[in-house]
Amino acid sequence: MSPQSILTPQSEDFPAWYQDVVARAEMADNGPVRGTMVIRPWGYAIWERMQADLDRRIKDTGALNAYFPLFIPESYLHKEAEHVEGFSPELAVVTHGGGKELEEPVVVRPTSETIINAYFSKWVQSYRELPLLINQWANVVRWELRPRLFLRTTEFLWQEGHTAHVSEADAGAYALRILQSVYADFMRSVMAVPVLVGRKTPKERFAGATTTWTCEGMMRDGKALQMATSHELGQNFAKAFDITFADAEGGQSYAWQTSWGASTRMIGALIMAHGDDNGLRLPPDLAPVQVVVLVVRDEPEVVAEANRLAAELGAASVRVQIDDRTATSFGRRAVEWEVKGVPVRLELGPRDVAAGTATLVTRHDGAKVPVPLSEAGARARAALEGVGAQLAREAEEMRLSRTREVASVEEGREAAEGGFAVMGLEVLGAEGEAALNSSGVTVRCVQRRDGGLPGPDDPDSDLVAVVARAY
Amino acid sequence: MSPQSILTPQSEDFPAWYQDVVARAEMADNGPVRGTMVIRPWGYAIWERMQADLDRRIKDTGALNAYFPLFIPESYLHKEAEHVEGFSPELAVVTHGGGKELEEPVVVRPTSETIINAYFSKWVQSYRELPLLINQWANVVRWELRPRLFLRTTEFLWQEGHTAHVSEADAGAYALRILQSVYADFMRSVMAVPVLVGRKTPKERFAGATTTWTCEGMMRDGKALQMATSHELGQNFAKAFDITFADAEGGQSYAWQTSWGASTRMIGALIMAHGDDNGLRLPPDLAPVQVVVLVVRDEPEVVAEANRLAAELGAASVRVQIDDRTATSFGRRAVEWEVKGVPVRLELGPRDVAAGTATLVTRHDGAKVPVPLSEAGARARAALEGVGAQLAREAEEMRLSRTREVASVEEGREAAEGGFAVMGLEVLGAEGEAALNSSGVTVRCVQRRDGGLPGPDDPDSDLVAVVARAY
Repeated sequence: MSPQSILTPQSEDFPAWYQDVVARAEMADNGPVRGTMVIRPWGYAIWERMQADLDRRIKDTGALNAYFPLFIPESYLHKEAEHVEGFSPELAVVTHGGGKELEEPVVVRPTSETIINAYFSKWVQSYRELPLLINQWANVVRWELRPRLFLRTTEFLWQEGHTAHVSEADAGAYALRILQSVYADFMRSVMAVPVLVGRKTPKERFAGATTTWTCEGMMRDGKALQMATSHELGQNFAKAFDITFADAEGGQSYAWQTSWGASTRMIGALIMAHGDDNGLRLPPDLAPVQVVVLVVRDEPEVVAEANRLAAELGAASVRVQIDDRTATSFGRRAVEWEVKGVPVRLELGPRDVAAGTATLVTRHDGAKVPVPLSEAGARARAALEGVGAQLAREAEEMRLSRTREVASVEEGREAAEGGFAVMGLEVLGAEGEAALNSSGVTVRCVQRRDGGLPGPDDPDSDLVAVVARAY
Repeated sequence: MSPQSILTPQSEDFPAWYQDVVARAEMADNGPVRGTMVIRPWGYAIWERMQADLDRRIKDTGALNAYFPLFIPESYLHKEAEHVEGFSPELAVVTHGGGKELEEPVVVRPTSETIINAYFSKWVQSYRELPLLINQWANVVRWELRPRLFLRTTEFLWQEGHTAHVSEADAGAYALRILQSVYADFMRSVMAVPVLVGRKTPKERFAGATTTWTCEGMMRDGKALQMATSHELGQNFAKAFDITFADAEGGQSYAWQTSWGASTRMIGALIMAHGDDNGLRLPPDLAPVQVVVLVVRDEPEVVAEANRLAAELGAASVRVQIDDRTATSFGRRAVEWEVKGVPVRLELGPRDVAAGTATLVTRHDGAKVPVPLSEAGARARAALEGVGAQLAREAEEMRLSRTREVASVEEGREAAEGGFAVMGLEVLGAEGEAALNSSGVTVRCVQRRDGGLPGPDDPDSDLVAVVARAY
């Protein structure tokens, strides 16, 4: 069985390829309740690595983790007008608890601004306690009519940060620090996805925010995927939830706030930014297994050599696994590791061992080279070194080759059939955005012409809009 | 302000002391929906350390993490008769999603046996894939009428493991491995709580299990707290969910299963097993901050010395924090760290620094000793070394001094007013258990006379029951 035969080719039907790879790599299954998802061990191990890296970065900014309840009184949602309007259509509502009908129905959190800010209101007293920087890892629920595993699911896992600051400038700087040093840098250096960063248009803003910043990745079908957002909330929630503090001048002020989140959607991005017709291609930093030692036949000298190699790699902190399930054909097992995206395979057969060699296979470029057994461990480690950078380079070349500068809204709509289109923000305008939306194209972000972040005083004439079809 | 004045003394009103310490140590708050809980950063940081240690131990047994949906079709619960009977009174039910009434209501998971076993049924085909060892970290909901922070909350955080095996012996051995090497060893060596391990009586068994194993700790009011359980499920769920596999002999067999869990309840245990009238006493392995360097007055030479000490301790991988909030009185800050249970304080004032000394305060025994500044870092590290063992010793001495061997059910009832009572299992009998239950005393676990675990063939005459009032 060749790898090609088990997955629909990307060029034939990209969504079918995605579905195939999620199933065949054992990443996830559909749950029994519409739109829910079972994250299988291979998918969850990738998520754990994403979590660990992001959690460290979040803590480096000074934020502390906490946990707020899943259930929110319905009335809380109504305190911020735009927020409730944005989330009402997606809510799951609990009406019965402990065998009785509840007096007030409770909603399952779609996001936690309302409940967290109700507590910020109690906790924040003085400017001395600010900034208050809180993060939580949690599940949230947004009822999804057209679900897709990892990309749009009724329940998903994420982190959500919520902060309160003494000034607008401090809140703004923190929202950008999260955008850049937590999200964008993680996506570029760990996920190997060269995201664009920019500001959302008012139409695409988070419900209740004054500014939404975003990281946008290009998938291998040319579509965009929003991979994380960081919001400045102004004083909207502070006023709705009465978050005031004694300021340094002896008065009372409303806090300035931010919120920011990244979810299991990033797993979908990882799949679609790097995967090929043979399956996943994982950057080594996120691969649950970095090197698999594949025993072709379980003869004693082969198994001994496999154990020696695995021990050597394990001692060098490589995540290594031996596959000696020789009751299953070698070809089938090779295809399985290929689909799962393990960066490096060391294949060991009786003839190899007799000849003092192993076959080193690198997943990202499909190269197979014989290596001396004595060097196999070192060569495998060396092969891992370059994988992340190579995947990032490929992804960046793809994005560049599928991005067109255009001079009109109509050209932008056409260019978005195959990738990203970049046009002057003045050329676009609110009418142009509406016109694009009606053909399924959205503004992904607004940037400076050089790709930098727009400042609050930049005139539209200095800015561009990146438009695309999106997940 | 002395520490004593901010907490109700334990001897006066233990539940009030508990409530005070949870609030004053900023561990948790009540949520707005009855029985829910906000875990504040100090409480959550302890939970993260518990999670990290348990997660490593769970993975060492070969289990893999995964994630299953929060929402379970109501019909799933009905597939195992005892299970649905056990959980029905506690369910939260979602009747509306996405603005519409649902065709079939869904329940919020109270535990995940049903949904996980529905997938095991799909995944398990051959004995070659067994054992299947899965764990998940998740929130669960059991509607709670008499909630208490950490101890009984409508929503709580936990891990739940679910496994399938080829034989009863294999499942049984695995359930015990989890009990001992994951739970009991963690509680004894990391939490410093000398738990008793044993078997639950049929009356106290998990709904759907054939055997339930438990870890029971004694709190400082003499009551018991169940800190984790590990269940053998026999083939009950395998038959209800049709989990069959092709066995090595060419036939089809039902799998043998286990499940096991430990929750945020352990935080309540940590508080009540070690806390005193001045607040928490944390074992260093779980303390978010192990050493606090307390600056009495923020004069330059004092701050410089505090920074030097913190850097030295940080470089030695000690979790250290400087408290230089000199706008707040020194006494008040000292009390705060005392309540929060930080194991070691280094207090630095201008006179200390001028004299070349610091004051080293150890939380667990309240000792204060002057130490030369040049040795302060090393002395603080040395002080941390013994804390866990000392807390464990104290907790064990307390348990031994409050445990009585008794010869009748009535004596057991009386002894349980102040601690644990141990009686022959034959003396107890089913009638005795019912009699104890009616006075609020329960059988915590069944053990061999030497404290060992009962074997399947041990006659009742060789076994004892440990009975107590319990949380």
